[in-house]
Amino acid sequence: MSVAMKPSATRAQLDEVVHKIKSAGLKVDISSGEFQTVIGIIGDEKRIDFDQIRSMPGVYDAIRIQVPFRLMSRSYIPKDVVVKVHGVSIGRDNPPVYMCGPCSIESYEQIHRIGKQVKEAGAHILRGGAYKPRTSIHSFQGLGLEGLKHLQSAGKDLDIPTITEVRSEVDVESVAKYADILQIGARNMFNQDLIEATARTGKPILFKRSFAAQIDEYLSFAERIVANHNKNILLCERGIMPLGGTFKSQTRFTLDLNAVPILRKETPFPVIADPSHGTGRRDLVLPMSRASIAAGAHGLMIEAHDRPHEALSDGAQALDPKELAKIIRMCNLLHKTIRESETPFSSDFVNGNGHD
Amino acid sequence: MSVAMKPSATRAQLDEVVHKIKSAGLKVDISSGEFQTVIGIIGDEKRIDFDQIRSMPGVYDAIRIQVPFRLMSRSYIPKDVVVKVHGVSIGRDNPPVYMCGPCSIESYEQIHRIGKQVKEAGAHILRGGAYKPRTSIHSFQGLGLEGLKHLQSAGKDLDIPTITEVRSEVDVESVAKYADILQIGARNMFNQDLIEATARTGKPILFKRSFAAQIDEYLSFAERIVANHNKNILLCERGIMPLGGTFKSQTRFTLDLNAVPILRKETPFPVIADPSHGTGRRDLVLPMSRASIAAGAHGLMIEAHDRPHEALSDGAQALDPKELAKIIRMCNLLHKTIRESETPFSSDFVNGNGHD
Amino acid sequence: MSVAMKPSATRAQLDEVVHKIKSAGLKVDISSGEFQTVIGIIGDEKRIDFDQIRSMPGVYDAIRIQVPFRLMSRSYIPKDVVVKVHGVSIGRDNPPVYMCGPCSIESYEQIHRIGKQVKEAGAHILRGGAYKPRTSIHSFQGLGLEGLKHLQSAGKDLDIPTITEVRSEVDVESVAKYADILQIGARNMFNQDLIEATARTGKPILFKRSFAAQIDEYLSFAERIVANHNKNILLCERGIMPLGGTFKSQTRFTLDLNAVPILRKETPFPVIADPSHGTGRRDLVLPMSRASIAAGAHGLMIEAHDRPHEALSDGAQALDPKELAKIIRMCNLLHKTIRESETPFSSDFVNGNGHD
Amino acid sequence: MSVAMKPSATRAQLDEVVHKIKSAGLKVDISSGEFQTVIGIIGDEKRIDFDQIRSMPGVYDAIRIQVPFRLMSRSYIPKDVVVKVHGVSIGRDNPPVYMCGPCSIESYEQIHRIGKQVKEAGAHILRGGAYKPRTSIHSFQGLGLEGLKHLQSAGKDLDIPTITEVRSEVDVESVAKYADILQIGARNMFNQDLIEATARTGKPILFKRSFAAQIDEYLSFAERIVANHNKNILLCERGIMPLGGTFKSQTRFTLDLNAVPILRKETPFPVIADPSHGTGRRDLVLPMSRASIAAGAHGLMIEAHDRPHEALSDGAQALDPKELAKIIRMCNLLHKTIRESETPFSSDFVNGNGHD
Repeated sequence: MSVAMKPSATRAQLDEVVHKIKSAGLKVDISSGEFQTVIGIIGDEKRIDFDQIRSMPGVYDAIRIQVPFRLMSRSYIPKDVVVKVHGVSIGRDNPPVYMCGPCSIESYEQIHRIGKQVKEAGAHILRGGAYKPRTSIHSFQGLGLEGLKHLQSAGKDLDIPTITEVRSEVDVESVAKYADILQIGARNMFNQDLIEATARTGKPILFKRSFAAQIDEYLSFAERIVANHNKNILLCERGIMPLGGTFKSQTRFTLDLNAVPILRKETPFPVIADPSHGTGRRDLVLPMSRASIAAGAHGLMIEAHDRPHEALSDGAQALDPKELAKIIRMCNLLHKTIRESETPFSSDFVNGNGHD
Repeated sequence: MSVAMKPSATRAQLDEVVHKIKSAGLKVDISSGEFQTVIGIIGDEKRIDFDQIRSMPGVYDAIRIQVPFRLMSRSYIPKDVVVKVHGVSIGRDNPPVYMCGPCSIESYEQIHRIGKQVKEAGAHILRGGAYKPRTSIHSFQGLGLEGLKHLQSAGKDLDIPTITEVRSEVDVESVAKYADILQIGARNMFNQDLIEATARTGKPILFKRSFAAQIDEYLSFAERIVANHNKNILLCERGIMPLGGTFKSQTRFTLDLNAVPILRKETPFPVIADPSHGTGRRDLVLPMSRASIAAGAHGLMIEAHDRPHEALSDGAQALDPKELAKIIRMCNLLHKTIRESETPFSSDFVNGNGHD
Repeated sequence: MSVAMKPSATRAQLDEVVHKIKSAGLKVDISSGEFQTVIGIIGDEKRIDFDQIRSMPGVYDAIRIQVPFRLMSRSYIPKDVVVKVHGVSIGRDNPPVYMCGPCSIESYEQIHRIGKQVKEAGAHILRGGAYKPRTSIHSFQGLGLEGLKHLQSAGKDLDIPTITEVRSEVDVESVAKYADILQIGARNMFNQDLIEATARTGKPILFKRSFAAQIDEYLSFAERIVANHNKNILLCERGIMPLGGTFKSQTRFTLDLNAVPILRKETPFPVIADPSHGTGRRDLVLPMSRASIAAGAHGLMIEAHDRPHEALSDGAQALDPKELAKIIRMCNLLHKTIRESETPFSSDFVNGNGHD
Repeated sequence: MSVAMKPSATRAQLDEVVHKIKSAGLKVDISSGEFQTVIGIIGDEKRIDFDQIRSMPGVYDAIRIQVPFRLMSRSYIPKDVVVKVHGVSIGRDNPPVYMCGPCSIESYEQIHRIGKQVKEAGAHILRGGAYKPRTSIHSFQGLGLEGLKHLQSAGKDLDIPTITEVRSEVDVESVAKYADILQIGARNMFNQDLIEATARTGKPILFKRSFAAQIDEYLSFAERIVANHNKNILLCERGIMPLGGTFKSQTRFTLDLNAVPILRKETPFPVIADPSHGTGRRDLVLPMSRASIAAGAHGLMIEAHDRPHEALSDGAQALDPKELAKIIRMCNLLHKTIRESETPFSSDFVNGNGHD
């Protein structure tokens, strides 16, 4: 920990801070610059109350450098984690995995029909929402348990693993019973009880970053999953808050692709990008899918619907299965091109401040 | 609804949009400007799929003006709501109400001791956390049920109503049993299931705005409380995200006092400001408390601790009870000065675009 | 400076960082925690390249605590600065100063007419724009030099000092010739050449914070004024970016009143708040003016126009002179109430982490 | 224009709005929903004062759909613009163009040496700063005119076009004399006088988006270049503000790649991405360069320095020329792969809400 005094700090204030530190059994190193004095603390910092020092008169700032996540870091799990779900391997050098399907499960027939289409288009995992997080109480909230059963049935009939969102602690068990991967949505990223309850099922979890979370904050919440002995984690970037202002925002969210290489460096877990929710615009899904794969994503979540104009939710961002097939072929080609080049994905981590 | 075509839209694209609207049985009004054509839609807009129109070729934007909250608005409840809790009246012209106490309940003795101090300082309601929302799994998480019991005991012994946060759907019943007001924290503002479960207890709810929610979005979530037949709502501004950047942020959050007069105009419910969490700095609590009252807040939530340097959480923002007493006296004086002036709080609503 | 190694850092990487530091003639203090090793640096940090250390393999972060502004701080100018303009004293314990007038100077007649009205309403300084910063090239850009002459004439005839914005380096001299206070607008806060050219005129400067600047960044740009030997500085908070999202933003900007007590603590210069631009809504000017004064502002900038619906710019936020008079009376009363209370403005600075 | 009344609006308020509109000679279409009444306006909207309507009692919102930029849109210039600089063609289907070099020109020798290296690495244009925009007055500010001469000399000797930033209106002429492309930096995006003065030189301009500008706002400022009869425009995404919060921000800025396909759709001008400034981290330049090209960028600006640890500015983000050569080869390969695929870049514009 370092403590910087204000330029206006008096000698008495400096002495009081130093006294406080020494009386905890630590040593100090004082550097007096032209404008400012900085106190370096030598010894076991746990003996000192950080907040107390910070709020003492004359103190400008007290900084403690600490990695805010530990169990998610490569020191705890050095090697890339591969998450396996019914024969699909996600992460490390595996080809990209595509999780596709409608925003909402609307009927038995609909999820079977679209499930078949996305599988033919190249998708590996079928997505569909049964419990929908909605801003307005007046919007369609999902089919609930009935939707879960339709999804499970489609998954079995089509031999494709499934993913769906768990929105409430109360539903964790039933969602875990019917789906293969449990998704924790962006709005629940700060919901520690839901995270822990979901983690304890032991099932694979796709954990979405909140639109309002810095990357380190996101990882410090993901930490709760590993702390509950579940390492089947898929990290997912799905868009941060757009810039505020008085002009029309071109997108609902801002897909933050910087997060993809950063997450790959900081943690061993697979990283998924969601260009559908990340932009909210169908016409941006193709270019942003290409960019996600090029940035290093291990997979994509893409909303698809064969009748987007009839979808009960998020129709504006859903792709039809033919467009989806083209995107998947394009992304597979890009991934292969990069993997076989002189600078494959693994070379992202050897320059500069990598995970080494 | 209005539909604006792009400057580059072709005649055929315009015709297709017009055809789509007319075939739903509606009329159009086309205004062709120098650069751009706008289609006004005349008739019942519910017959048209907004997203579908918006994603048609040649369309720049389709805008539907809709107030996103209804049950929270003054058209549903025209008159100012007064929330009453064991003899304390909050809202309308009542003097400011102060909700004070420690961040966390740490022991039976601590909550009784501080409870007594804050009551003597002028507080009307005792706050204390039993279930703490924490970023890190490695921090103190609260005493849970035991803490609730200490709080209830302190409330009874000191004859002061209590408020505490409910963090998880699973705990709603027990929190409702022990506390007088249930708080839904900023991180749970988007947690629709928790909101609804809490609303159904019928108890007064202090509903905090998320640090990432626009005001209209906040109110559209609050709507779920009224929809569950609970009108005992206290709205609470507690700080939005600070501006990003590479400089040290002076505050943890940015207390957004613009929200105070806006919430008072848009809705009939009492508005509380929380300068402790809203800034995260003890030394800003006095000036921002004054500013909150001057902006029109019906009450304040202020963290207090007689031994801030020993507090198990948020010590850096807690005030000691003597300072608290001064703030309460100052704020009462300010409130009285404004209420008795030629422009009392009620005159905020007669100029310009008020609630009329 | 402290250097934190990553949890995954190898012994060799640690050794290399230590070697780099020692070879610059400095000493190190190494603390090895359970998860992470931190290197404290002892000695003159200027000998080390901060960026170089930060980008070495195995380094998590390297932090140097430095106050980013010096000449603006109370160590350089300990006592509150009072800026005097033709008999008007701004800052310290002086009563609030009001700078009022139309957004744009529209004609000789208009600025004389409104000037008379705002002076009668209690304003001390007449504002009016001759060079308007506008988003769109298709909007009214101001009368330029002609407007400056109208403003000067109104100021002389009415015996009231004037303030106007200087938008371009090229105009600095002529604006300095005609106006008493030069305003640097929010969009030019990062325009270092304009700041320095304006500073060199020696005239009082009202320097607005950008809607995108953290407070410390703002002060580091203001530093350029003092560095050019001009201490006649009025700091001005006029609203930061609103939160982004898909809901209607209730205000154009978010007036950040947290900045008022922070700026008063960190620097000796007077702090002005601009609730007109800070919110963009006429009906919020009264409550936010009260809140600004209560937060500690030394003065207010308020747009006024007797025919707001005919104003060539910003009509939606301008007040009519009668409303203005009421606001000024209210704010004067509030200021007096606080100044004469047991906790006057000066007591904001004695608790906690103040400038002491 | 549509006007939405508040749910609480009275009949008299509605009548007053309708009267105001009709008295301007326009017609109205009133739709009364369950909660809210909306007035559609039929006729020439220019006859009505938008702000006036918006601020009338009982009005919730008044919305006018207007594309905020015209001359930048594809209706004014339908076909992709190719900007040519001394034999280098930027835009449309041309292979990516790389603008590389040091952040600051430090000496005659340095810019010649690095210029040679980046040209050998595959760069087409040499960048180097002579006038540096800096936050702190205490940092290196650039060599100024002397630097410009070194840059011109290096460009001639190496037969490579040059680009440098013009920071002040006063320097426009001399920068235009010495450099081939003039850059307007992110901090000057709102500086309308600088934009117009630079545009009038007729030279190619690389116009960077501010870190605080929504895309539509950015384009409305770029509009000023075309309005001054200069169509040699390169648009440039270089990072928006990172999310605020109390955690360490992983990057200085957030490179917003969503902007790349959006700018390509909305305007005909070439789009450049700057992953060096956009992230501020050397180790992210490779993955974010790949992602930029995959998103559709026509070129990249990348900082390079053969002795990054000795650079006078921005050393932490500069690449050495060998790494640069690999990135350029990788990006050329990616561009070719996409251009020759079944979904080349041009297919980004045929689905959904494209420019058609």
